[in-house]
Amino acid sequence: MLSDKLIKMIIEKRSPIVVGLDPRLENLPKEIVEKHFLEDGETFKAAAESIIEFNKGIIDAVYDLVPAVKPQIAFYEQYGLEGLRAYQETCVYAKSKGLIVVADIKRGDIGSTSKAYSIAHLGKTKIGNSYHSAFEADFATVNPYLGDDCMKEFMEEVMAYDKGLFILVKTSNETSGQIQDLQVDKEKVYEKVAEIVNTWNEKIYGEMGYSQIGAVVGATYPEELELLRKKMPKAIFLVPGYGAQGGGANDVLGAFNADGLGALVNSSRGIIFAFEKMGLHYQEAARKATLEMQTAINDALEKAGKKYWI
Amino acid sequence: MLSDKLIKMIIEKRSPIVVGLDPRLENLPKEIVEKHFLEDGETFKAAAESIIEFNKGIIDAVYDLVPAVKPQIAFYEQYGLEGLRAYQETCVYAKSKGLIVVADIKRGDIGSTSKAYSIAHLGKTKIGNSYHSAFEADFATVNPYLGDDCMKEFMEEVMAYDKGLFILVKTSNETSGQIQDLQVDKEKVYEKVAEIVNTWNEKIYGEMGYSQIGAVVGATYPEELELLRKKMPKAIFLVPGYGAQGGGANDVLGAFNADGLGALVNSSRGIIFAFEKMGLHYQEAARKATLEMQTAINDALEKAGKKYWI
Repeated sequence: MLSDKLIKMIIEKRSPIVVGLDPRLENLPKEIVEKHFLEDGETFKAAAESIIEFNKGIIDAVYDLVPAVKPQIAFYEQYGLEGLRAYQETCVYAKSKGLIVVADIKRGDIGSTSKAYSIAHLGKTKIGNSYHSAFEADFATVNPYLGDDCMKEFMEEVMAYDKGLFILVKTSNETSGQIQDLQVDKEKVYEKVAEIVNTWNEKIYGEMGYSQIGAVVGATYPEELELLRKKMPKAIFLVPGYGAQGGGANDVLGAFNADGLGALVNSSRGIIFAFEKMGLHYQEAARKATLEMQTAINDALEKAGKKYWI
Repeated sequence: MLSDKLIKMIIEKRSPIVVGLDPRLENLPKEIVEKHFLEDGETFKAAAESIIEFNKGIIDAVYDLVPAVKPQIAFYEQYGLEGLRAYQETCVYAKSKGLIVVADIKRGDIGSTSKAYSIAHLGKTKIGNSYHSAFEADFATVNPYLGDDCMKEFMEEVMAYDKGLFILVKTSNETSGQIQDLQVDKEKVYEKVAEIVNTWNEKIYGEMGYSQIGAVVGATYPEELELLRKKMPKAIFLVPGYGAQGGGANDVLGAFNADGLGALVNSSRGIIFAFEKMGLHYQEAARKATLEMQTAINDALEKAGKKYWI
């Protein structure tokens, strides 16, 4: 089962880390981009080829250190069809290296539309009498604003193909409180969403005690993280906001259960663009930044008595 | 300005209608799909070619009757890169026929990611020193769960390229109330979102008195529609839920202001798949269904004293 696989990989690699693959052409190493501009001009194709080469380089540099990668589809969509080809090839390459792929797509719609998204990213598309994969991911992030109609559809692919979801509960950005922190009776909106997560995550548990229906909870709100950890003990937390967005190792401690498990902390820019600050080759820098993040998180967990490794 | 253009087209065509282009391969006319299966097999390419032919046929049949079309990107995404090529070609073809394109993408993310989505669908992507359009739409639908960080980024493209947004306020689906109807003080969550819409829509008005920042409010909740109309007098409402989802002409009346303007009612399946029930050629059926919808809505508006045409 996917949730067991993820938890076991976290333990084996001693690394509750997911590397965010959010490529921005202007931040990619110049030598990569210039080579592809020379070949294909300033085109979407050159952008896509640059991203593919860069992402494969990052994956090669860190795949033995982390259980998962998380491409954020917006950064590919902005390069059109070619960009989405780069997204697709990145997912395929990551899987070929044994990594779990979290599609950060934040989709959410009425039932019939959510069904189409679910098929697109987690399931199989029916064409005549054949079935094909459009985009291949293991987990997808979903937005709860439209309620259970959305999750219900995604659950069909989750159950049929051993996939998972991370439902947005409390996001890492500055204005996340505008809707998510609204006070409803004695709770906040995000606590209501946590209840929805619990309802769905009961339906699919692994033997490691974690569900394939998890929650997105930002590292930038450590108190909420701790509260929500108690509310959703069996959900795996996908924790954005570490590094470039301001969260540190101590800020994410609350995302972990007493067993030291249950969280997957994301870093994107802090790892993939580490070369900008370190003055090293981008692969070397990404590896170094990943190792530093791993040490920082594991040290904090050990100090907090949440050692999860053997 | 886009909002003026839309309102003027509604008046000239006597048609506050947007045709939803939500292609499902299994519902397309058999003769189209079989022809492309014969050419390309049961492949994504055949699916895309079928969708492109069908959509162009629908657009040809209705472009003189309506101001806008609304492709729902999920139905294209499920056919992978080829499906997204069909989405792209559909947008381009609709624009070539003078139609306004509403990209139903329901995106919403942290600032830097929303920026990438905004560039992808409303703006221009920078590649080296050149600028390119990834996907070309006039309006995009956005999800407010992450708050203003998202709208702020989209607003840059709205202002720079004369584009518009429809922010999800109260959606048409059955479980929309789960989050949207939660009671906060004396208001519901969707009323809080309506306030957010008002804040943004003040920033860009046309001479016809309507803003380019509108709201999505479902036809399936007529009372909420009326309440929200009062709360957001200058917002154009994108109203899903007519027809296949259960809303009728009287249900959408509340979406219109006293001047008979301010709403754009969507029908997808009820128009594009009208041939299934009517036993006519799909183009003839789509045209007939659009005319029937136009008559039903205009009759209801006239009876309600909300005649907007001259």
